[in-house]
Amino acid sequence: MSISIDKLDTPAVLVDIDKAFSNINKAQHYANAHGFSLRPHIKTHKLPYFAHQQVKAGAVGITCQKLTEAEIMAQAGLPDILLTYNIIGAHKLGRMVNLARQVTLSVVADNIPVVEGYDRVTAGTDIAPLRVFVECDTGGGRCGVQTADEALTITRRIMSAPNLQFAGLMTYPAAGKQAQSDQWLGQAKAVFEAAGLPIPAITVGGTPDLWTAGDMQNMSEYRPGTYIYMDRSQVAVGAATFDECALTVLATVISRPTETRAIIDAGTKTLTSDLLGQDGYGHIIDHEESRITALSEEHGTISAGADATLPGIGEKVRIIPNHACVVTNMFDHVYLVSNGKVVDRLPVAARGGVS
Amino acid sequence: MSISIDKLDTPAVLVDIDKAFSNINKAQHYANAHGFSLRPHIKTHKLPYFAHQQVKAGAVGITCQKLTEAEIMAQAGLPDILLTYNIIGAHKLGRMVNLARQVTLSVVADNIPVVEGYDRVTAGTDIAPLRVFVECDTGGGRCGVQTADEALTITRRIMSAPNLQFAGLMTYPAAGKQAQSDQWLGQAKAVFEAAGLPIPAITVGGTPDLWTAGDMQNMSEYRPGTYIYMDRSQVAVGAATFDECALTVLATVISRPTETRAIIDAGTKTLTSDLLGQDGYGHIIDHEESRITALSEEHGTISAGADATLPGIGEKVRIIPNHACVVTNMFDHVYLVSNGKVVDRLPVAARGGVS
Repeated sequence: MSISIDKLDTPAVLVDIDKAFSNINKAQHYANAHGFSLRPHIKTHKLPYFAHQQVKAGAVGITCQKLTEAEIMAQAGLPDILLTYNIIGAHKLGRMVNLARQVTLSVVADNIPVVEGYDRVTAGTDIAPLRVFVECDTGGGRCGVQTADEALTITRRIMSAPNLQFAGLMTYPAAGKQAQSDQWLGQAKAVFEAAGLPIPAITVGGTPDLWTAGDMQNMSEYRPGTYIYMDRSQVAVGAATFDECALTVLATVISRPTETRAIIDAGTKTLTSDLLGQDGYGHIIDHEESRITALSEEHGTISAGADATLPGIGEKVRIIPNHACVVTNMFDHVYLVSNGKVVDRLPVAARGGVS
Repeated sequence: MSISIDKLDTPAVLVDIDKAFSNINKAQHYANAHGFSLRPHIKTHKLPYFAHQQVKAGAVGITCQKLTEAEIMAQAGLPDILLTYNIIGAHKLGRMVNLARQVTLSVVADNIPVVEGYDRVTAGTDIAPLRVFVECDTGGGRCGVQTADEALTITRRIMSAPNLQFAGLMTYPAAGKQAQSDQWLGQAKAVFEAAGLPIPAITVGGTPDLWTAGDMQNMSEYRPGTYIYMDRSQVAVGAATFDECALTVLATVISRPTETRAIIDAGTKTLTSDLLGQDGYGHIIDHEESRITALSEEHGTISAGADATLPGIGEKVRIIPNHACVVTNMFDHVYLVSNGKVVDRLPVAARGGVS
């Protein structure tokens, strides 16, 4: 397969593998240089192909956000998986145990009922001790214990279980609040030390603050996801340049109702409604002055900027989306491109599936 | 299959078939009473199951937004399809001709190059004349000709083609601008009459204004989509009650970090970021005072309203999403429920696929 991008039917997701590999290596070099481990989050690409490349480049393992993702990656031969999500309910816990039979599995908990579930399904089994991180809310305002004392309580419950192993602390900090997270984690370390409990690892996430992760005093592992593709929101916060963005959406202009309006065949079912603080729904390569000002399900409206020339009916445009991770999730397949040619089409193996 | 909803793994999409059938019948009765045809848009459900029910109830055919949807529906035996989207490019035009061999196909055009494509691929074939509607921008600001004179020019080009047939005018009006659309269409009728060209049909869409469609003077066919499921945005504009909403998302509370915060396993990859003018990301049944104030990809944050009791860890909630059509599109399967029991699980047959 080596066809021209222009021959592809639209809308289509293109991934420039040279840029993706460069992004993988750049992050790994940064992690190596600053002495922390990298555990990339695969929710961005959902492809065993790239997960293997990330591990080959030096990642200690991968991160998944749901069981389906972890199951697909386990079947694809990824040996070390951290599932950064409380697992609840008999069915999911059964799947988790099955997963732990196949790979070195780490999970998280931010409350006692979740630890009790892990304890219940692992006790008496022949699987290796299940590694459990305690999730901490260090400013992100999502999941996580609110205080180091709560973390300590959950840790002790983990340590009391016959087949659970305390793996450390985990957090997903709010973008731009890295210093605050670091401080929170430092205080937790002091609390744990005072209690005589060493913390084996501290794992932190987020591409926006990846390039200053080396400044953190209380982090041993980092879990960036978007960094492999980058996107418009990462460019906006300075984490990437447009030229480093590996994922683009190829769309066709299907209508030119007015001089200043072009309609493309990419709407919310392609680009999604994610704004992430951006003005409009994506960056149009070679039409930087114009904006995608509205989306409906299968239509995108491009409004011309001052003095801008809009593409004509039938012309194709490439768009860097606001948020790469959610675009990947809309498509059954992505096209891999290199040097402007399509080299392969891969199924987005880990999309779909319940939880 | 007759299992309790509580036994389902989450997140899951549930469709109450009794409510969906009631919604189908209510709209059909309204159309019958007001003397216009109904041609439901299947982008909302993407299920042959419901498309057949809509036709059985009296719909003259169905509407699709992309070729993939139309191909799946054709294969499922739906005999009459309107594809309300300009079709461009050799590959898609080839698929369109193939579709026209299987069903009574109508398409749209809002510019000459699109009509030229239709002409080129249908001329000399053995398919029945392809029915082409001219799409008009009657206030929606998306696709469509801007003036009746433009519509006339495109109509004449359609009529000059050996195997195309002018089917009428088509518009997707902005919600709440029905009277403006009606006026636009009335003026177009006058222009066409003056030119000696009768307009065979005028097809108009949109669930928000469905229940006043009978007031339109210049419409013969209506294409509602969301009406079968309804959703929070339709309730907000008065087109439905919460009790009429047939589609709900079942989610589990996976964390309760604080007294006023609950985290559920439904984020943007379930509910999507569509706000459609709403406050928060969905209506939580039995927790009406509380709001889904934030979503990340696999997490939803519920913030407690005043005096509200939030559900505990492991408890399930049902959510009426802001926008039903985009939620359906996120899932490979939906569960059909009746009287509180799961009666079937259907693949979302027409999701995925390029364009």
